Amino acid sequence: MSNVSLALKAALNLQKLRATRPLIHNITNYVVMNYTANALLSCGASPVMAHAVEEVEEMVSMAGALVLNIGTLTPAWIDAMLVAGRKANQIDIPVVLDPVGSGATKLRTGSAKRILEEVSVSVIRGNASEVLSLAESKSGTKGVDSVHSVEDVSEIAAGLADKLGLTLAITGKIDLITDGNRVYRVSNGHELMSAVTGTGCTASALVGAFLAVDKNAAHAATTALSYLGLAGEKAAATATGPGSFQMAMLDALYTLTEKEVEKGAKIEAL
Amino acid sequence: MSNVSLALKAALNLQKLRATRPLIHNITNYVVMNYTANALLSCGASPVMAHAVEEVEEMVSMAGALVLNIGTLTPAWIDAMLVAGRKANQIDIPVVLDPVGSGATKLRTGSAKRILEEVSVSVIRGNASEVLSLAESKSGTKGVDSVHSVEDVSEIAAGLADKLGLTLAITGKIDLITDGNRVYRVSNGHELMSAVTGTGCTASALVGAFLAVDKNAAHAATTALSYLGLAGEKAAATATGPGSFQMAMLDALYTLTEKEVEKGAKIEAL
Amino acid sequence: MSNVSLALKAALNLQKLRATRPLIHNITNYVVMNYTANALLSCGASPVMAHAVEEVEEMVSMAGALVLNIGTLTPAWIDAMLVAGRKANQIDIPVVLDPVGSGATKLRTGSAKRILEEVSVSVIRGNASEVLSLAESKSGTKGVDSVHSVEDVSEIAAGLADKLGLTLAITGKIDLITDGNRVYRVSNGHELMSAVTGTGCTASALVGAFLAVDKNAAHAATTALSYLGLAGEKAAATATGPGSFQMAMLDALYTLTEKEVEKGAKIEAL
Repeated sequence: MSNVSLALKAALNLQKLRATRPLIHNITNYVVMNYTANALLSCGASPVMAHAVEEVEEMVSMAGALVLNIGTLTPAWIDAMLVAGRKANQIDIPVVLDPVGSGATKLRTGSAKRILEEVSVSVIRGNASEVLSLAESKSGTKGVDSVHSVEDVSEIAAGLADKLGLTLAITGKIDLITDGNRVYRVSNGHELMSAVTGTGCTASALVGAFLAVDKNAAHAATTALSYLGLAGEKAAATATGPGSFQMAMLDALYTLTEKEVEKGAKIEAL
Repeated sequence: MSNVSLALKAALNLQKLRATRPLIHNITNYVVMNYTANALLSCGASPVMAHAVEEVEEMVSMAGALVLNIGTLTPAWIDAMLVAGRKANQIDIPVVLDPVGSGATKLRTGSAKRILEEVSVSVIRGNASEVLSLAESKSGTKGVDSVHSVEDVSEIAAGLADKLGLTLAITGKIDLITDGNRVYRVSNGHELMSAVTGTGCTASALVGAFLAVDKNAAHAATTALSYLGLAGEKAAATATGPGSFQMAMLDALYTLTEKEVEKGAKIEAL
Repeated sequence: MSNVSLALKAALNLQKLRATRPLIHNITNYVVMNYTANALLSCGASPVMAHAVEEVEEMVSMAGALVLNIGTLTPAWIDAMLVAGRKANQIDIPVVLDPVGSGATKLRTGSAKRILEEVSVSVIRGNASEVLSLAESKSGTKGVDSVHSVEDVSEIAAGLADKLGLTLAITGKIDLITDGNRVYRVSNGHELMSAVTGTGCTASALVGAFLAVDKNAAHAATTALSYLGLAGEKAAATATGPGSFQMAMLDALYTLTEKEVEKGAKIEAL
């Protein structure tokens, strides 16, 4: 699929999202719950946050996608994520994993890996060190420290995506998306996005929303990240710092037209 | 009480709130804690969020109202709500229930019903499907699916309010408030209110604040919802999307004068 | 140290913070997690929120400071705070305690006191009634009710700081900081700061950030509070209420130059 058509697909996915308003079930961290709920509403989706093990199966059954985010994890929350994830798998609902802080503590790395073992995940969205921490073998030979360039990241990411059988969406100044087969690069965005907490978590939630309307996981992730980056660009035009930027991002997600998304999307297929 | 005097009462309730700054004890969901605390501060009340079963009785004893919101419930949180609710009943502090998502999962519907069985609630604030889920008998004959018009909702709501012996505040494009005897309709508000997460939860918190200064539960709920709707109208005048709207709502709650509330309140007694 | 040099130190601390971006580990309340994370990012620090007892020791080992805030405490969270605090002590990482609501319930007062018994705290940041609740002996003779003037507070605070062997930062219209030896007064700030939830919690988080770059706890607290107050002053110049103020505070924390901080700091050594 050419670059032009992925830009068009970004617009079409957004259109579908706004038309169908899919429910996105999030089991996510306390820090970003309000903001990601608002981001999902702003893009046209219907967010629900529900983490009780007693209800996650019922809730995910109504959803178009499930987003698992380990940002403020405890073992009880991970248990709920596993229950929800397995149910999602049974009924063919796509799952996004945001391995927040994987690589930083054993609990995080172990929990992220456990989710990957027990749940079939469609997309992992994280920064480079989080995603690559999942590639570490016990001998540690493929660790984060061994990564020195974008090319290295691309190669390791494609290999890891292939091995895990899923799509990786590695966000940063440039976003890199790969399903092991194709690699896409998104260069939309603005530096203020890194001055606000939860931008990555918002990206994961939007990937969930786009997955609900696009079965091609790599396309869903790529178009979602391009749209979010465009919202960042639009927000930066009026913001006077990270506080006003954070709110302007929601405004931009809401007001960006499909035409603007098609025109502004900076997506390259490598 | 005529329409004119309920508009006046909205202004007077706000005046009392700003003068007395009652403590409002919230056991609420993670998504909206920050926003509802800010909304309560903006209207003049003093918010406290406290959910540990070890302290809720002490905390509610200092409060002017208790707001129970099941948005991100677990069984442990429901237990704390029951303990706090029973204590509130003992010492005659009004209780608001926000049955977020009741009807969507068994845990939510069951928890909302359990609270209603064990705690004497003054006002239930929810959307139509949440509130009407509480009317469902085990045979399911009065379910949400049977509701086809505003008239149906009014009638069922009045019957349910009468049966439960409390006030129902059903919010939506038009808000409907009934204590089983009288029915009030509030037509303040703006469509952007539904593009922001937690607007309903904010409504419940404000109903709690107004209950702290107005013993007539139907009047407290009606005037609180009119005031919140007016803040939405004022915020929409400057907002450029849901992000700026969310913040402008807090500004409006804070800056609306009692005169503006009296003039702008659109309340009908049916 | 003269007033002039503490104003200069405020600027220098901010400069160091922005240059070194220390990780600040927060175990804090649900209400303010998003806002304090954003405030820490805005001042140049790297926030992390992590409360699982399974990972707090690892997490704090990477941090420049640990901030413990009991705003929505439960016994399990207090346990995690104790584990994190003891680890921080072992490896010489400064600890801030925000005893939110101490004095209001037994759980809060008891938890704050327990943390002080088991963890060596560098700075307690609270309002007058919270901080002075920690001074209460079992006979109750030094209770909050006995405090009648700023002079009384200064004297009791200095005595308490000396007895506890730490720095107290008591915030309000005027902030009072004392390590038992010296007393500093900060008169930056704006009344809208009290119309927003979590301003105190933000102050505690910023004290943590400044402690990561300034080993003199009284200086770190004093300069952090002056900087936050300046951000409040700057934000108030454009805000139209507490909603826009809250966001403008983040903008101001981010955009205030070190020069502006040095010029604007209102710090007196008493």
